[in-house]
Amino acid sequence: MTKTAAIIGGGVIGGGWAARFLLNGWDVRVYDPDEEAERKIGEVLDNARRALPMLYDCAMPPEGTLTFCGSIAQAVDGAAFIQESVPERLDIKHAVFAEIQAACDPEAVIGSSTSGYKPSELQQGARDPGQIMVAHPFNPVYLLPLIEVVPSAETAQAAVARASHMMAEVGLHPLRLHREIDAHIADRLMEAVWREGLWLVHDDVATTEEIDNAIRYGFGLRWGQMGLFETFRIAGGEAGMRHFIGQFGPALKWPWTKLMDVPDLTDDLVEKIASQSDAQSGHLSIRALERKRDNNLIAMMRALKQQGNAAGRLILEHQKRLAPQSVEAAPLVTQARVIPVDWTDMNGHMNEGRYGQIFSDAAEVVMAHVGADDDYVASGMSYFTVETDIKYLAETHAGERVEVVTWVTEGRGKKLRCFHEMRRATDGEVMATCDQLMLHVSLETRRTCEPPAPVLDRVAALAKLHQEA
Amino acid sequence: MTKTAAIIGGGVIGGGWAARFLLNGWDVRVYDPDEEAERKIGEVLDNARRALPMLYDCAMPPEGTLTFCGSIAQAVDGAAFIQESVPERLDIKHAVFAEIQAACDPEAVIGSSTSGYKPSELQQGARDPGQIMVAHPFNPVYLLPLIEVVPSAETAQAAVARASHMMAEVGLHPLRLHREIDAHIADRLMEAVWREGLWLVHDDVATTEEIDNAIRYGFGLRWGQMGLFETFRIAGGEAGMRHFIGQFGPALKWPWTKLMDVPDLTDDLVEKIASQSDAQSGHLSIRALERKRDNNLIAMMRALKQQGNAAGRLILEHQKRLAPQSVEAAPLVTQARVIPVDWTDMNGHMNEGRYGQIFSDAAEVVMAHVGADDDYVASGMSYFTVETDIKYLAETHAGERVEVVTWVTEGRGKKLRCFHEMRRATDGEVMATCDQLMLHVSLETRRTCEPPAPVLDRVAALAKLHQEA
Repeated sequence: MTKTAAIIGGGVIGGGWAARFLLNGWDVRVYDPDEEAERKIGEVLDNARRALPMLYDCAMPPEGTLTFCGSIAQAVDGAAFIQESVPERLDIKHAVFAEIQAACDPEAVIGSSTSGYKPSELQQGARDPGQIMVAHPFNPVYLLPLIEVVPSAETAQAAVARASHMMAEVGLHPLRLHREIDAHIADRLMEAVWREGLWLVHDDVATTEEIDNAIRYGFGLRWGQMGLFETFRIAGGEAGMRHFIGQFGPALKWPWTKLMDVPDLTDDLVEKIASQSDAQSGHLSIRALERKRDNNLIAMMRALKQQGNAAGRLILEHQKRLAPQSVEAAPLVTQARVIPVDWTDMNGHMNEGRYGQIFSDAAEVVMAHVGADDDYVASGMSYFTVETDIKYLAETHAGERVEVVTWVTEGRGKKLRCFHEMRRATDGEVMATCDQLMLHVSLETRRTCEPPAPVLDRVAALAKLHQEA
Repeated sequence: MTKTAAIIGGGVIGGGWAARFLLNGWDVRVYDPDEEAERKIGEVLDNARRALPMLYDCAMPPEGTLTFCGSIAQAVDGAAFIQESVPERLDIKHAVFAEIQAACDPEAVIGSSTSGYKPSELQQGARDPGQIMVAHPFNPVYLLPLIEVVPSAETAQAAVARASHMMAEVGLHPLRLHREIDAHIADRLMEAVWREGLWLVHDDVATTEEIDNAIRYGFGLRWGQMGLFETFRIAGGEAGMRHFIGQFGPALKWPWTKLMDVPDLTDDLVEKIASQSDAQSGHLSIRALERKRDNNLIAMMRALKQQGNAAGRLILEHQKRLAPQSVEAAPLVTQARVIPVDWTDMNGHMNEGRYGQIFSDAAEVVMAHVGADDDYVASGMSYFTVETDIKYLAETHAGERVEVVTWVTEGRGKKLRCFHEMRRATDGEVMATCDQLMLHVSLETRRTCEPPAPVLDRVAALAKLHQEA
């Protein structure tokens, strides 16, 4: 499989797909006849280059090569993954698929970003319907992992499997629908809320801002980490879902929704919604809103990552595949990463606590290197830090790429002493140093003890190598 | 206003209300005829005592007194805030309101946790309809800030204002509806999704777990921080909401929802949902699910707090009212807080980086004490840390209460040197110490400079006081 993706149709969605692949080391070829395409995709890429690496606590692979192509044929030639994100008109999509299939590898997979069409509709008249499926992403595509993968009966199972594998490679979560349906899953749920929300504004029950607050101060927080059914399962108590349905099922017969009916989008209603939205958010440009949204998403997703749950678990799994093994060297390279937005404080720079964290992360790499890795910790032994002396030499800002190099300065008995330097990746300036003393402990007794011989030997060898360097 | 709340009806919702008031220093009187009420409320309180203080980076006020009462009359006597959370039957609620109003202060406000009834229905036959309003909370009430406040035309405006003020006092966000409507706002939105979700399971498009993933890996994350309309505003680009509606409005005419129709809750459908939910979450008890949910919510809400946005902004505002002024003393008490769940690492204890953060927070209190507060930083000057030497003496775990005491050990010219001790609040054991050197800087030049005389004098005075101590 070549690591080459073709993006047909740019804009916010196509640009988001391009960014996902590029930043995960794929080469990307873009075809979009819009004269503004390069600028528009460039803007999405700028956002993505800033935001996506902040989800990971390791460096991402070197960025792939981005090429703008003059034709669909040129873009798809040799691509393993082809993603269509052209306007939502079936005739346009059919014409695009015909051009793609005239030039692409028969083993390539073709996904469509459509929210409006079913795969069987997309496949009408196609040379090889087996390649085509819906692969519906969510904005911002460079941060949100969800992709709804919808095959029709004619889509080849092997193509779905290949597509899903490639999406997982770039940190996406392919969610396969059991059968096709108008608007797939997520947009049906959103459409239901949208219709109900329109009525609430129409009937002056609440403004757009009040409705947003009703979501984000309440169930939105629940849904962001557990979704609907698991949240309701908790509401049912130990008796679980059956009890919940028994208790709240009758509400289905109550007039709790206007959705038997659809509001007319009269000029008055459009004006009302738009002006309420202006009052709510009009003081911020779309660019500023995007920045705020991305910062919130990064911080929330990192919070879930720290808990090892929900979307955060997906990032951890992807990160395991991204993180390189540490290589025997003097000094060791123990960290290479971007400073995320949740590491800064009121002075606008990285909080001193986060220097402690990055040196702690660096020490974990040293530990793994001498055999005291996750499994070792699970088996009941670890190293605990007993003293750190950190010198802060330069300010560090969100978005900066840094690396930490580490010398083992002492490695005898229970002792493991490291000297870390954190350097700016672009110019090598030393931004902070840390002298860190760790002692080996039993996690059972929580007391110090000597490590077993294999670890002891590797620590001693590393200390010797670093002393001679 | 007495800081006394009466909770009529216990359980998960009543218990959550009780916890909100108690942990914010109110006395709480509970009436619930259920023999199990004390145990049930005790369980909710245990969850709340662990979780709610983790949202704040300061100590909460001393807990109020909880009293279980033998009658409604006894519970409401002298209470300023009375909250009804009895079963969803109108005859029961009417009887409860009659008993409440026979005994309560005429100035007290009476809220109902109902999701099913409108305030005008609750007020039928009431002695004083003016006191009664809907105050609809969201589970877990001890963490989520949203309260839908719904008055009817008969509810006194002054009562709504008093109720809203008291809710804000305990960190809740009273969202006032412009007029009453069945199921208020949030439950209408949730009901729409619930109905659509039932169809998706019924029609075998997706399982409960897949639907939950479609939410929590995608739009759930967006909604948790921005809600629906602001998210869609971004989708509209610079042209904003009008453009978005123009683009997506036509979907209202498409068959994107089954909500013109309601699925029948046949035994088969109930069994299907319940068994899918068991497959998804059955390996965890409800208690374990609650713990996981609470940890996720705490971490996400703290992430939003660090960004100063959405629900996190509400917590920051509440915290400002909770945080005490530091009192001149030798040593200064510079931190008093609970260790939150997002501060621990793979060793199961507080990460060393977070020791750095708590000492950094302690230094900010010292700075505020000498006049280098938020306004001072905004005016262009601050202190930056140049070196810390931290000794880690004991393990610290999530949920532990700690305090930091600080001596200013040097305060001359640009220099401000502090020695911090972090102690376990329960037994005073010193868990870590930090020797921290700060230098005064201009935020314009990012270089060191002497502070102006008032700050210089206060630093010197504090150093002198602490040297003599």
